[in-house]
Amino acid sequence: MAKELTSRNDNYSQWYNDLVVKADLAENSAVRGCMVIKPYGYAIWEKMQHTLDKMFKDTGHSNAYFPLFIPKSFLSKEAEHVEGFAKECAVVTHHRLMNNPDGSGVVVDPAAKLEEELIIRPTSETIIWNTYKNWIKSWRDLPLLINQWANVVRWEMRTRLFLRTAEFLWQEGHTAHATAAEAIAEAEKMVGVYAKFAREFMAVPVIVGHKSESERFAGAIDTYCIEAMMQDGKALQAGTSHFLGQNFAKAFDVQYANKEGNLEYVWATSWGVSTRLMGALIMAHSDDNGLVLPPKLAPIHVVMVPIFKTPEEHAALVEKMEAIKADMEAKGLSVTIDDRDNLRPGFKFAEWELKGVPCRIAMGPRDLAAGTVELARRDTLTKDSVPQEGITDYVLKLMDDIQDNIYKKALDFREAHTIKVDSWDEFKEKIEQGYFLLCHWDGTTETELKIQEETKATIRCIPSDSFVCEEPGKCVYSGKPSARRVVFAKAY
Amino acid sequence: MAKELTSRNDNYSQWYNDLVVKADLAENSAVRGCMVIKPYGYAIWEKMQHTLDKMFKDTGHSNAYFPLFIPKSFLSKEAEHVEGFAKECAVVTHHRLMNNPDGSGVVVDPAAKLEEELIIRPTSETIIWNTYKNWIKSWRDLPLLINQWANVVRWEMRTRLFLRTAEFLWQEGHTAHATAAEAIAEAEKMVGVYAKFAREFMAVPVIVGHKSESERFAGAIDTYCIEAMMQDGKALQAGTSHFLGQNFAKAFDVQYANKEGNLEYVWATSWGVSTRLMGALIMAHSDDNGLVLPPKLAPIHVVMVPIFKTPEEHAALVEKMEAIKADMEAKGLSVTIDDRDNLRPGFKFAEWELKGVPCRIAMGPRDLAAGTVELARRDTLTKDSVPQEGITDYVLKLMDDIQDNIYKKALDFREAHTIKVDSWDEFKEKIEQGYFLLCHWDGTTETELKIQEETKATIRCIPSDSFVCEEPGKCVYSGKPSARRVVFAKAY
Repeated sequence: MAKELTSRNDNYSQWYNDLVVKADLAENSAVRGCMVIKPYGYAIWEKMQHTLDKMFKDTGHSNAYFPLFIPKSFLSKEAEHVEGFAKECAVVTHHRLMNNPDGSGVVVDPAAKLEEELIIRPTSETIIWNTYKNWIKSWRDLPLLINQWANVVRWEMRTRLFLRTAEFLWQEGHTAHATAAEAIAEAEKMVGVYAKFAREFMAVPVIVGHKSESERFAGAIDTYCIEAMMQDGKALQAGTSHFLGQNFAKAFDVQYANKEGNLEYVWATSWGVSTRLMGALIMAHSDDNGLVLPPKLAPIHVVMVPIFKTPEEHAALVEKMEAIKADMEAKGLSVTIDDRDNLRPGFKFAEWELKGVPCRIAMGPRDLAAGTVELARRDTLTKDSVPQEGITDYVLKLMDDIQDNIYKKALDFREAHTIKVDSWDEFKEKIEQGYFLLCHWDGTTETELKIQEETKATIRCIPSDSFVCEEPGKCVYSGKPSARRVVFAKAY
Repeated sequence: MAKELTSRNDNYSQWYNDLVVKADLAENSAVRGCMVIKPYGYAIWEKMQHTLDKMFKDTGHSNAYFPLFIPKSFLSKEAEHVEGFAKECAVVTHHRLMNNPDGSGVVVDPAAKLEEELIIRPTSETIIWNTYKNWIKSWRDLPLLINQWANVVRWEMRTRLFLRTAEFLWQEGHTAHATAAEAIAEAEKMVGVYAKFAREFMAVPVIVGHKSESERFAGAIDTYCIEAMMQDGKALQAGTSHFLGQNFAKAFDVQYANKEGNLEYVWATSWGVSTRLMGALIMAHSDDNGLVLPPKLAPIHVVMVPIFKTPEEHAALVEKMEAIKADMEAKGLSVTIDDRDNLRPGFKFAEWELKGVPCRIAMGPRDLAAGTVELARRDTLTKDSVPQEGITDYVLKLMDDIQDNIYKKALDFREAHTIKVDSWDEFKEKIEQGYFLLCHWDGTTETELKIQEETKATIRCIPSDSFVCEEPGKCVYSGKPSARRVVFAKAY
């Protein structure tokens, strides 16, 4: 077929790029580093959004919207924050174009220079905490639990579709609390929501943990994360949740009157996931034939392809398919009949495989006569003859099976590619082979950076689930004492 | 109460501003011209979005996402388009900040100047048609029916919350068709979707029509619109749908091979509604007590307030309310029990009136004993004693009644403030009193502009429904012959 992919073994990175483009998920735009999310890709993102949005609301959060622009002076108010974001900012300096006096199109009007430059938000802590200052007066105003769905811009030099783009879509939660304990509980709750979403909907077996100091969000006291293993053994950070302490409350002077009437600074969290999740979803499950989608996030669950020679056969097959489709849709399945008249069935099969539709049903005149269909599973690439009678219930159960199977497959892969390593030689060998390494670490940023310099591996997280890591030992690099193992890996 | 509004009669404009802020819908941000949409306001916008999104999908459209940034050179490719937008553009010129050498915070890094400036999208025709160039090859790729939910920026000098802000949220549909007739039919279909949404969900009796040439979208051949009357007799343009001809296809060289294999330029439409709809919703129905929301877009349908003296009374009332709430929620109503212990019932009543909750239920010990509630309607401000038995069905019907009533009220108001005017003196008199004037017009831009100069009134639309306008006459200004009346009004 025309849309052949590079295989994962030949070039994993090229396979990913090919897949994103050929499965109609996204493409590079005319603007450096910015992508166009195509309808099929956007439909998956919408399913992610709707699921997450409901989870946020079920945990008491409301949506709101804050400006795209951040005054330059706001960024500077939290020292670590500006340090973290200043180097990759899109800066608005003017508010008008004018005709070029030489007649060649339009140019920036020098008379329309802004008094203060505006930064396109790379994240919204500063503009939001400047707003919260007016919203929070008393303990009765707390907790304040707000989420925003928005676009943000970080001017990355090396970009890749979904994984790292100059503009991306995300949600950012920003909450305010009366006590440190409440804020920490919120940050933990939300990383838990992310882990549940990744595991149950994306079918990605993430590890929950804390970031080491050097990998923390700029301005956070503690960063929680979910980390996923891709099929090349590299890690992908799929979501983060930050305990911000009182850093932003102090930077923007946000205090509340407690029950005794005394003023105290507010405690904060922020948490976000982005269109990067699309990258995790694609890389976790897909194969050399294309995308493999978990049924819970697939825009189309079932595609039906009629196989016929005569117009009469065609009419009879499509009539039967329409009846099956109606029954399936009534039970919540999304079904497409691929009735295009200019393509052979084999071409259609390959195309829907490429697009990761979990279940394909083909039907020819003999199937029609026998009351059967040929049913193919995308995850296993197996085919079966299945009775038309009861087909909807069969497919509903199949969706659950596929969802479970691809989760289990990803989990098995991760288990098989995660090992305890206690010697520096083995560390260097295994990290090149694409493993998560559970190692002792002496807790210093110095050691972490040296390991990164020598191997490109970083501490992905200090796990709080998935592995038993609490045991005394010696740092794999420095030999100094360590109370627990952490996860090292190369990362996206 | 603390949140008293300016009355509409005293100062309509101040009433609107007070209402938006005091009902917790939105507020001005620290960034000039940009608003913060607060959770209660955003909840209404989300209901609008969900309803419209379903209507777009039901008419065959898919969502996608295109970049926030538009290369400056793209804007220039369609002559009228750049003329229309160049004067109010936010321009990104740099991609990095650096520490100020003098130690005083951060400054723009002069070394990080972009080769070509990027415009924050004021609308996305150019970046989208540059993309469509690669998506459209053959007649089989048409029609292409795409919508985008996004933020856009137009650097307006005078801004007002929701009505005119530098950044606003909107949806923009961009479709491509094989023939002019199909594109025109699409533009008409979508203005029809907008009219249906405005009438059936917002309860706003809009007029559908065409814009005159001078009010058309920059780059359009024909602009359809929906126009609504506010309570001061001014018009608010609530949505537009454009037939773009082949202007953008030619500017970006988008051609398709027709069934005969010949290349032809594609025909286009675009259509959009924005957070401006919030302004229309607020101004169409609200009163001096606050917001009046149509039940179909109200985030909360019913608020319940317990009236008690003792903790025992309180417990018994809340127990009963919880039971009623559960029953109502099972039937799709959104219900809040206002159980705050630091506020008097009268204060709560006023606050929920301000927020426009359609139905308020108060209950005291005597109601509890009698099996009744005191039920207040927001639209009529009337109160009734209603049996608890069957209260859910009563309220469900009440929601329909309120939805119908506020539509009828707005329609009656518009009818009473729309008159046929045939003399210039009467035109000048009535336009000052806040009327829609159905007048003959000679069809020239010259006359239209003179009328605008003398009275500030503009042609809101050449109606295609709502009024019978097809009758010969003489232009109210020039006396030249005219085949039909058009709608003149002052506008937001």
